[in-house]
Amino acid sequence: MAEAASMERSRILPLTKVNVNDPFWNYYCNLVRHTVVPYQWEALNDRVEGAEPSGAVRNFKIAAGLEQGEFYGFVFQDSDLAKWLEATGYLLATSPDPELEAVADEMIDIIARAQHANGYLNTYFTIKKPGEQWTNLMDCHELYCAGHMIEAGVAYYKATGKRKLLDVVIRFADYINEVFGNEPGKLQGYDGHQEIELALVKLYETTGSRNYLNLSQFFIHARGTEPNFLVQETQSRNYESHWGFVHPKKIDTAYFQAHQPVREQEHAIGHAVRFVYMLSGMIDVAAETGDTGLFAACRRLWDNMTERQMYITGGIGSMAHGEAFSFDYDLPNDTVYAETCASIGLVFAAQRMLRLEPHAKYADVLERALYNTVVGGMARDGKHFFYVNPLEADPKACNGGNKNYGHVKPVRQEWFGCACCPPNVARLLASLGSYLYTADNDTVYAHLYIGGEAEVELGGTTVVLKQQSELPWSGYVRFEVQPEQTAVFKLAFRLPVWSPSASITVNGQTYKAGTVNGYAVLERTWQAGDTVELALEMPVMRMHSHPLVRSNAGKTALQRGPLVYCLEQADNGEHLHELSLPKEAELSWRKAEDLLDGVVVIEAEGERLKAEDWGTALYSASAAPGTRLQPLLFIPYFAWANRGEGEMAVWVRES
Amino acid sequence: MAEAASMERSRILPLTKVNVNDPFWNYYCNLVRHTVVPYQWEALNDRVEGAEPSGAVRNFKIAAGLEQGEFYGFVFQDSDLAKWLEATGYLLATSPDPELEAVADEMIDIIARAQHANGYLNTYFTIKKPGEQWTNLMDCHELYCAGHMIEAGVAYYKATGKRKLLDVVIRFADYINEVFGNEPGKLQGYDGHQEIELALVKLYETTGSRNYLNLSQFFIHARGTEPNFLVQETQSRNYESHWGFVHPKKIDTAYFQAHQPVREQEHAIGHAVRFVYMLSGMIDVAAETGDTGLFAACRRLWDNMTERQMYITGGIGSMAHGEAFSFDYDLPNDTVYAETCASIGLVFAAQRMLRLEPHAKYADVLERALYNTVVGGMARDGKHFFYVNPLEADPKACNGGNKNYGHVKPVRQEWFGCACCPPNVARLLASLGSYLYTADNDTVYAHLYIGGEAEVELGGTTVVLKQQSELPWSGYVRFEVQPEQTAVFKLAFRLPVWSPSASITVNGQTYKAGTVNGYAVLERTWQAGDTVELALEMPVMRMHSHPLVRSNAGKTALQRGPLVYCLEQADNGEHLHELSLPKEAELSWRKAEDLLDGVVVIEAEGERLKAEDWGTALYSASAAPGTRLQPLLFIPYFAWANRGEGEMAVWVRES
Repeated sequence: MAEAASMERSRILPLTKVNVNDPFWNYYCNLVRHTVVPYQWEALNDRVEGAEPSGAVRNFKIAAGLEQGEFYGFVFQDSDLAKWLEATGYLLATSPDPELEAVADEMIDIIARAQHANGYLNTYFTIKKPGEQWTNLMDCHELYCAGHMIEAGVAYYKATGKRKLLDVVIRFADYINEVFGNEPGKLQGYDGHQEIELALVKLYETTGSRNYLNLSQFFIHARGTEPNFLVQETQSRNYESHWGFVHPKKIDTAYFQAHQPVREQEHAIGHAVRFVYMLSGMIDVAAETGDTGLFAACRRLWDNMTERQMYITGGIGSMAHGEAFSFDYDLPNDTVYAETCASIGLVFAAQRMLRLEPHAKYADVLERALYNTVVGGMARDGKHFFYVNPLEADPKACNGGNKNYGHVKPVRQEWFGCACCPPNVARLLASLGSYLYTADNDTVYAHLYIGGEAEVELGGTTVVLKQQSELPWSGYVRFEVQPEQTAVFKLAFRLPVWSPSASITVNGQTYKAGTVNGYAVLERTWQAGDTVELALEMPVMRMHSHPLVRSNAGKTALQRGPLVYCLEQADNGEHLHELSLPKEAELSWRKAEDLLDGVVVIEAEGERLKAEDWGTALYSASAAPGTRLQPLLFIPYFAWANRGEGEMAVWVRES
Repeated sequence: MAEAASMERSRILPLTKVNVNDPFWNYYCNLVRHTVVPYQWEALNDRVEGAEPSGAVRNFKIAAGLEQGEFYGFVFQDSDLAKWLEATGYLLATSPDPELEAVADEMIDIIARAQHANGYLNTYFTIKKPGEQWTNLMDCHELYCAGHMIEAGVAYYKATGKRKLLDVVIRFADYINEVFGNEPGKLQGYDGHQEIELALVKLYETTGSRNYLNLSQFFIHARGTEPNFLVQETQSRNYESHWGFVHPKKIDTAYFQAHQPVREQEHAIGHAVRFVYMLSGMIDVAAETGDTGLFAACRRLWDNMTERQMYITGGIGSMAHGEAFSFDYDLPNDTVYAETCASIGLVFAAQRMLRLEPHAKYADVLERALYNTVVGGMARDGKHFFYVNPLEADPKACNGGNKNYGHVKPVRQEWFGCACCPPNVARLLASLGSYLYTADNDTVYAHLYIGGEAEVELGGTTVVLKQQSELPWSGYVRFEVQPEQTAVFKLAFRLPVWSPSASITVNGQTYKAGTVNGYAVLERTWQAGDTVELALEMPVMRMHSHPLVRSNAGKTALQRGPLVYCLEQADNGEHLHELSLPKEAELSWRKAEDLLDGVVVIEAEGERLKAEDWGTALYSASAAPGTRLQPLLFIPYFAWANRGEGEMAVWVRES
């Protein structure tokens, strides 16, 4: 299988060749560059007052012998720094910043000094548990941290051409390759938290060394086979966990997606972030090894996740216990988990599916997660983050009123002890440009409508694409096509699921494009200066859920373009559950320039249950509570919780 | 304060003077006598195959020196046996049973031998932690177990006249009185789990010794005062808990209702069973000590609980975490706790409120809890029990699908390791007769319409009341009044909240009775053979919740008489959330003789979301899912989960 021909897949355009310049996204790109990444550097150095310390930088200094002290933080603390370095690499790829680069170089020097002679690199095991490497893969995120460092090394090398961190991770990966594998004497194990699988494919793509692909393939294929590695490992530790408790005798292997071989799995299950990281690695390995059976599993798992277990906001993970998927159509809006990191992983997986199968359904999900949960995971100030992204929140419940909602925060938090989400948002947004297009020999696919300039090679011709986009506020998109010489190639424009009709003009003339898998494909002889204009209809949509979704029965959610909307207490008063949207209510939208830095709001004449006439009875055989008219104002979900603490609801009763 | 005059309160009729003989309740009374109590005796003796062992009897044998071995079970295991003995006392009070009495006597002999010379009695501390008595009142239920044994001693004495167990508990109470109190050198503490407070008042009423009332008053008044005893005790133990974890530095004193002095408390809060047991003790102490300020707190807490934090089924405790109240109007139907024991405690508190204030609102709640959650807590076979009583259950979620519902069981369980609920149901149903009436000098209040015969002294005249009742299936009730001589007195009949109108006849003639606090008061000269007939209108009611109840917005529940109804999968198919009840749908009822031993069912033409037309999209901008007509069949809530595993829902969308 390992030697089968790889499947064809389209290329991601390197960040050095894509520049984002977009009225909506510039804010976030600038925020990441000028606020988020600098702020997180302060956080990683324990210099943010009032925030939980990180210890991540100091751990590396201690491991490098530069400082004395104890390891601080979670066993996976290294990964926060790695994600920051990866984000830094992406920033440097799109715009030089000598000061930032100097900071990163200095950090990389420290990391290199913390690396063992044999290539091993992990501050927790170096400082706190020397000699215990690879003894608790289930709990200790050792390969997970390695994976993040590999991603950082690759990103930093691609951005700067500097090999120092790349060489560090190559040495580390080579060492891991000596330790793990099917060969006798090697550890036939895998990490409790998937991540290294996708990282190794990046390292393979960057170095061309097939060892890394093979190692990734090994990890993917070993997972869930019998005898179960995680079970055996836990037994050998007498069921003791890293976390201070004793694992139950029956290990919940599904939490780790290790309950059966991955190619046999049917359902999105277990810890949601691990699942989407694994799925990303599976797609990569399937593609690069030509493993169609594995890819069939990827399709099956993708479909189960997105057609049965995904929130309308692109959130995944229905339960706090295990930060995990629950079961088909179980999508509670208030006890939800929907971790920001999980939606980021969903973006990763979607991009990989797109590379193999340019089908709009993958880009639709990517866009849904990006514009709602990912952007919503961060406050407008770039310094506060959601870990959990509810679709219905009541501060009275979240703030201790009902412990069932203890994991849901009604305001974004400064920095987490477990700080996986903030640097994950940073690295995703810093690399936003790489999600806009993919290209194969003769086609550029435009997946996201985000303005800027991209340069792409198509059959030997260099083509510059200049995109202008009014998304998410209107569906007008304009492309200027600049091939270095007149050439025949295809531009494939995604027709988003949220747009009932699109008109396309080329140089002002209506163009009837054929549609393939949700993309309008324009194949013609392109000349410098050709323009393509898309007018994507962007009506306000009343969304409904599949009838099997218990939580949304009788309810509707509003969406316009990629944006899901919500009611907030700030606009609609408290007790949002009293509000309903009549089935016939007209929905109008307008740009509210002064609100939340300018957002399109949706307005409708709604109804509110009249509590004031009810009296004190908790239950009554009298008629249902009366209603009075109340104008409703919906704002984009991503912008919620930026005006103090209050209730929020995405799904509203339809009356 | 202790010497203030007691408040007047009506009397409970002793069980020896009330005989229940009722078509609906005979089943349960016989079940308790012939199945539940014998079955529980087997369980307490670890002789039920397949059920978790109890150890309760054996613990006493070991503590008595009759057997060798280790303590088994929870720290409060003794209380299961005490509740069984109390139930046995109630059974013996209403009907002789020499065989059962011999078993109980033998057990009491063992208990007496397990008592220490100083009066102390607790098998956990005797066997497992000698010398550590009274060192962990917060966690160890020591006074709670004492309270249950006192209740058993009182019940057994009242039933049989035998003093052995009464003397045991008197010695124990006397010893507790030496250990606890305000006086210097005494422990100024109280139990983490209230129970002894109400038990001591029973002992006071039975023995006439005011020491016990004073001690109860001490426990009530010490609770929540500063410096906080529970906090200090925990500090002195270095925050170590009995349960193997370390208490957080900030003790959640509200869980124990010890966050402020009880007379200042405003909200039902914390562990629900503890709360209602405390409230029962508070009412008793307020009454017996004439403490009107304390009684004002009782009223306030009662109103908060029943008007803002009680399920329509009479369940209390909205969250599994802490088995506790959450906050006003927070009544989730699916993640609910609503422990059977809590509704039993609600019955206790309601009866005590009724004795002080014969107001129908207390009896309405008592009846609601009794006919729905309490009876529903036990299977028709008397051998399976609910601990948690959900108002919406989906086996897919409960059986591991979503861990958030892990505490909710969709089928009743055989016996619990923590077996508080089954013997609590037994002791309540065995003493059912004592909840029917209260009496003061010249009035008998009929609170519950349950057939049978009662004998009561009214101003020197012995009156026999024979009740026949068709509840809960119809609202026809007939009383035959047999005073030993012609006399003037008052019969006060409760006009239930569920009955919009009642007609009353005396000897066949319409009688216009005055109404006082929800009771129709018939004052006249009564002669032997007088009959009173009540025709309580019993329509099917569409119930609605207060508009502030988020979980029930847009929903309705059906109730007829005291019975709340529900939809079950067995009658209506799965995916109950797809069902709705049109606002105008006609509701009809009929007695289904073959169903669940004969219940009145409610039928209506409902609607079901059509999943079959929807396709695979999880979210769609198309119209809301269509509906098709479906006949709905509602059964009484108490009877659910007697036909295998399936979904259930009390609240249904109103369309």
